[in-house]
Amino acid sequence: MINISSIIEISGTVAFAISGAFSAMQKRMDIFGVIIMGFVTAIGGGTIRDILIGDTPVSWMRDYKLPLIILGTVIAAILFKKYIKTFKVTLFLFDALGLGLFTIIGIQKGVSIGLNPGICIALGTITGCFGGVVRDILLNHIPLIFHREIYATACIFGGMLYFLLVGYLDINIVKVIAITVICSVRIIAVKFKLTLPKLYV
Amino acid sequence: MINISSIIEISGTVAFAISGAFSAMQKRMDIFGVIIMGFVTAIGGGTIRDILIGDTPVSWMRDYKLPLIILGTVIAAILFKKYIKTFKVTLFLFDALGLGLFTIIGIQKGVSIGLNPGICIALGTITGCFGGVVRDILLNHIPLIFHREIYATACIFGGMLYFLLVGYLDINIVKVIAITVICSVRIIAVKFKLTLPKLYV
Amino acid sequence: MINISSIIEISGTVAFAISGAFSAMQKRMDIFGVIIMGFVTAIGGGTIRDILIGDTPVSWMRDYKLPLIILGTVIAAILFKKYIKTFKVTLFLFDALGLGLFTIIGIQKGVSIGLNPGICIALGTITGCFGGVVRDILLNHIPLIFHREIYATACIFGGMLYFLLVGYLDINIVKVIAITVICSVRIIAVKFKLTLPKLYV
Repeated sequence: MINISSIIEISGTVAFAISGAFSAMQKRMDIFGVIIMGFVTAIGGGTIRDILIGDTPVSWMRDYKLPLIILGTVIAAILFKKYIKTFKVTLFLFDALGLGLFTIIGIQKGVSIGLNPGICIALGTITGCFGGVVRDILLNHIPLIFHREIYATACIFGGMLYFLLVGYLDINIVKVIAITVICSVRIIAVKFKLTLPKLYV
Repeated sequence: MINISSIIEISGTVAFAISGAFSAMQKRMDIFGVIIMGFVTAIGGGTIRDILIGDTPVSWMRDYKLPLIILGTVIAAILFKKYIKTFKVTLFLFDALGLGLFTIIGIQKGVSIGLNPGICIALGTITGCFGGVVRDILLNHIPLIFHREIYATACIFGGMLYFLLVGYLDINIVKVIAITVICSVRIIAVKFKLTLPKLYV
Repeated sequence: MINISSIIEISGTVAFAISGAFSAMQKRMDIFGVIIMGFVTAIGGGTIRDILIGDTPVSWMRDYKLPLIILGTVIAAILFKKYIKTFKVTLFLFDALGLGLFTIIGIQKGVSIGLNPGICIALGTITGCFGGVVRDILLNHIPLIFHREIYATACIFGGMLYFLLVGYLDINIVKVIAITVICSVRIIAVKFKLTLPKLYV
């Protein structure tokens, strides 16, 4: 059954895969590199989460669907690379939606194995953000989320809200609120070019 | 009992360890760095595979032999560093053999825990190639296999052949064919300087 | 109950967290980046150890205390960043103590699951040193311990001593000796600017 949650997950995965494939093409990688970068960006966060909690084989290995979607996405991204920029805003919105959903998926995995709220929020943030961290390491960059734009902050904020509300409201309503908040914080941050202050010594 | 498969595995491990140690010396690392780079290159792929499928403690921790072989190899590489280039062709052939064997080892591990063929091929490719990826990350390079030479492609090709033939021929014959194909594709690619087309945006 | 071992572990964690936070501020990361770098440096080694042996969820996820200490430490490091250099010697001593203790913790985890001595020493060295390796990868540097200063060597040396003595002396005495030796080797190496010879080809 395809439900709202699946549609968001697929949209987010597609957006993450395109982001990885696109940055690989900017570095002039070959087709294998572009495919791997698409995969790593899309599934990296969930993979690190599964490894940290010992939920193995990691989830993409047990699920035919997601790897096929990523492969199809990357091939489409290669074929239509000229037009990717046209969809920039759409992709950004998918990415923000995916960020919200992935964070909540990570939090719920943590809750399901009895981890405490702070650790669950960390797990959610890792699920949402660390695909991008692995992508940046492979591209030989300092991870973008450590010094640009509000990204992880949105996850942490949404995660805290999740645990504040979870005792008072229906779980599905809490999830929708948390995802909406993460997504909104991210969109507002980009629209108004909000960043965290840089620290230095 | 030493059999053909063990001999290939040891040859491949030796070649991978030398490749890691050699690139560490090119970056003027100290002896500890050279040893670690030899290890990481030789066992990195199998380690990532074992972590992804949850087969822990990872295999090199349960096997006295392989770490000792790697340590001996790296020490020999340091002592005879002037002469490594003399064995360049031999090492390249060992490396190609190891690539083939490691890929098939990875595929069979996947099959043994019931993963589907596509995932098994990914697992084989990770086993064969990701030691080099970790090596390149530690050397602060963009992984070579993402933008130069046909390497992972050979694994994927050999892996697909494995699953095409496995229903029709004896498993040992299939393994020999797949290893031979991976090894041959790799050798032909290097001999004729074949590369995948670079993509860019 | 707070005992000597807990105090050393906390001191070491604090020193490692400050080292990570400080290097993040040198790269002008934002507050999120600084926090993550503090965490990764403090818990990276133990996390890699736990993943390699399959002891999951990794230890910091099961322990409220350590993440809170790290968070507090990083916030203090940000607030008092001007004064960090004043405590340089103190921090270095904490770091050396932590290195010794973490190495022995790693070795004992290996012993407890029946790994052989050589692998246990590797596990101890990973516990003590690989937080710094992850920190350097995220900073886009070649890991410091591969080409500067005696660091891992101290762990390996102390680990070998541990196994030489463990049959003859009380286990607690062996631990104290091994930690003292690792700590001393590290301090002496820094004081007299000892390094391992660089290798090159």
